[in-house]
Amino acid sequence: MRLPRLGVTLGDPAGVGPEIVLKAFSQPGLLPAAEYTLFGSRQLLQEEQRRLGLQLRLGNLIFAENEEGSLALLDLGEPSGSWRRGESSAACGGVSFRYFEKAVDEARKGRLEAVVTAPISKQSWHMAGFSWRGHTEYLNSFFSGAIMTFWSDRMRVALLSHHLPLQEALGLVKADILHRFFMHLHECLEKAEQTGLELIVAGLNPHAGEGGVLGKEEEREIRPAVERAKADGLKISGPWPPDVVFRQALDRPDLMAVALYHDQGLIAFKLVAFETGVNVSLGLPFIRTSPDHGTAFDIVGLGKADPESLRQALRLGRRLAAAPLQFRP
Amino acid sequence: MRLPRLGVTLGDPAGVGPEIVLKAFSQPGLLPAAEYTLFGSRQLLQEEQRRLGLQLRLGNLIFAENEEGSLALLDLGEPSGSWRRGESSAACGGVSFRYFEKAVDEARKGRLEAVVTAPISKQSWHMAGFSWRGHTEYLNSFFSGAIMTFWSDRMRVALLSHHLPLQEALGLVKADILHRFFMHLHECLEKAEQTGLELIVAGLNPHAGEGGVLGKEEEREIRPAVERAKADGLKISGPWPPDVVFRQALDRPDLMAVALYHDQGLIAFKLVAFETGVNVSLGLPFIRTSPDHGTAFDIVGLGKADPESLRQALRLGRRLAAAPLQFRP
Repeated sequence: MRLPRLGVTLGDPAGVGPEIVLKAFSQPGLLPAAEYTLFGSRQLLQEEQRRLGLQLRLGNLIFAENEEGSLALLDLGEPSGSWRRGESSAACGGVSFRYFEKAVDEARKGRLEAVVTAPISKQSWHMAGFSWRGHTEYLNSFFSGAIMTFWSDRMRVALLSHHLPLQEALGLVKADILHRFFMHLHECLEKAEQTGLELIVAGLNPHAGEGGVLGKEEEREIRPAVERAKADGLKISGPWPPDVVFRQALDRPDLMAVALYHDQGLIAFKLVAFETGVNVSLGLPFIRTSPDHGTAFDIVGLGKADPESLRQALRLGRRLAAAPLQFRP
Repeated sequence: MRLPRLGVTLGDPAGVGPEIVLKAFSQPGLLPAAEYTLFGSRQLLQEEQRRLGLQLRLGNLIFAENEEGSLALLDLGEPSGSWRRGESSAACGGVSFRYFEKAVDEARKGRLEAVVTAPISKQSWHMAGFSWRGHTEYLNSFFSGAIMTFWSDRMRVALLSHHLPLQEALGLVKADILHRFFMHLHECLEKAEQTGLELIVAGLNPHAGEGGVLGKEEEREIRPAVERAKADGLKISGPWPPDVVFRQALDRPDLMAVALYHDQGLIAFKLVAFETGVNVSLGLPFIRTSPDHGTAFDIVGLGKADPESLRQALRLGRRLAAAPLQFRP
C-alpha cells in the first residue's frame, strides 16, 4: 500500500510554527506513517534546531505502527526584509503565504492527499498585502464549498459560516442554504469515511425559539431544512437549544454538532478542547488540517510550545485523507 | 446575629421541585443556617415524602456550622383541576405561579432577604394564562433593572439580555446601554459584597471583530462603553474574542464574564456547570437564586433527581443575601 502524502507548512517564522514542527518530527514514533513534505526553509529550521538542541533527520524515518515513513523538505527560502521573533511583519507574511500557496498548489495537482498547516499571522499576511484573512479564506477562493470543522476527542463541530460579522452570518440561516450545507457536509464526511457521524443542529435563538415565542428562524428555516435532509436519508436532528446541543455532543464520538455561526460552535469547542483541537477544512479535493491555536507570539523562543495539537492535526489529516487509499483501492 | 430569611418555592408540582426540596431539607447539615420558609402545599409535600420514604421535620432544625436554623411551611394549596406528574397543565401553572408570587410579595415587603425558586414549567404558566415566560420575566415586570447571572465553582457569567430573539438581542449592543449595564452590575455586586470580581466583556463578532474587518460593534459600541466604565472606576476589560473570554473566566474566582446575549453566555456556562450551576437574579431589592435545571419531567417520580444544584442555590442565596446582615450591622 502506498503511504498517504502529507504536506506540512512551517507557518509564520516569527511564531511557534517552526518550533512545534521540529518537536513533532523529532519524535516520529508518535506520528502516523506517511510521506511528509515540509514546505519551509532549511535555514530557518537549522537555526531553530540549534536553539532547541534538536537534530531533525530528513529522509527515511521510522514512524508509528512500525511502518516506514519519510520526511522531505521543500526549501522555499527565508523572509526577505526585516522581521523579529514574536512580531508580525510583511517579510514573514510574504514567506508564510508562499509556503502555504505552494503546498496547496501541490495538493491541487494531486500530489498530496492532505495539507497540515502550522499557524500564520493574519496581521503579517495583511502587512504583506494579501487580502485573505487566513488559510480558510484563501482556500475558499478556489473552493467555494469549503467547510470549517473542528475535531477533538471530546467534541466535533461544523460551522455553517466562519469569518463573517455576526449580523451577516445570521442572514445565512435560510432553509435552502441550510439544506445544501447539510447535504454537502454529509457528502464530505462520507468521502472521508466518516459515515457513522450523526448531525445534531443548533437552533439560533434562546431555547431554540421556544415554539416561536423567542424567535421564528427555527420553525421557518431550520426545522424545514433538517426535515428535508432527513427525508433525503441523512442521520440528522434539530434544531436543538443552542445551550444544550454542544453539551449533547460532548463525549459522543458518533455525533457532530452543526453551529449556525462562528462563536456558537467555537465558544463550546474551545472550552472543551483548548489548544488541543484540530481545525479541518472539508469540501476540498484534499484534506486540510491545522492545530487549533495561533502563532503564540508571547511564548516564541522560550522552547515551551507544545506540539501535541500539531500531532493531532497530522494524525487526523492522515486518517481522513488516507481512508480512500485504504478502502477504495 | 439574626439569621437571614430565605423563601423557597416548591416549583411546578408535576416536576422535580417537590422531590429536590424534600431531599435538600432532609439533610439540613448540608445547608447554611437560615430561617427558611417553604412556599408550597402541605398535602403535596406529604404525598412526595411517602413516595420518597422521607420524613421532613418542620420547625427548628440543626443546620450547618452548628447554628440553629428553622423551616416553616406556608401552605398555599394544591393544583385545582386535573394534572399528572411529568406533564404541563394549567392547574400546575396556576399553583406554581401562586407559590412564587407570594414569595416575591413577602420579599418585596422586606420579610425575606432571598427567594430560592425550584423549577417551574413555562408551558404550564402559559396554559394557566400567565404571560410571563419565566421567573425572571415576572421579576422584570416590577424591577426593570433585574440582571440574570450564572454562578458555579468554575465560572461566573452575567447576561446583557436573556429571553429575547437573537436578532432583537443584537439591537441592545449599544454603547450607552452597555455602559449603564456595567455600572448597574457593578453596583449589584458591591451590594452583595462581591467587590473583588473583575468584569471581562465578550465581543460580538468572531475574533471580537478583528479590528473592524469582522464587524464594527466592538470599536463603535463595546470598547467605548468599557473604557467609560473603566474611567468610572470599574475593574473591567474587553471586548475579548467570544471564543476566548469564557475560557479566560474558567477557574478564575476573581472574574465574571459579561455575555452580550443569552446563548453566548449559556453555551459556555452549561458546558462547564451542567445542571450544577446556580441562576442568580441581581438588581432586585432581594436576592433570587434558582438551580440551573428545569422541571426534568422525564425523571419525575423515579426518585433520582439530584438536589445538589438546589443546595448550591440555597448556599449562594444565603451568601449573597446575608452579606449585608453580617458586615453592615
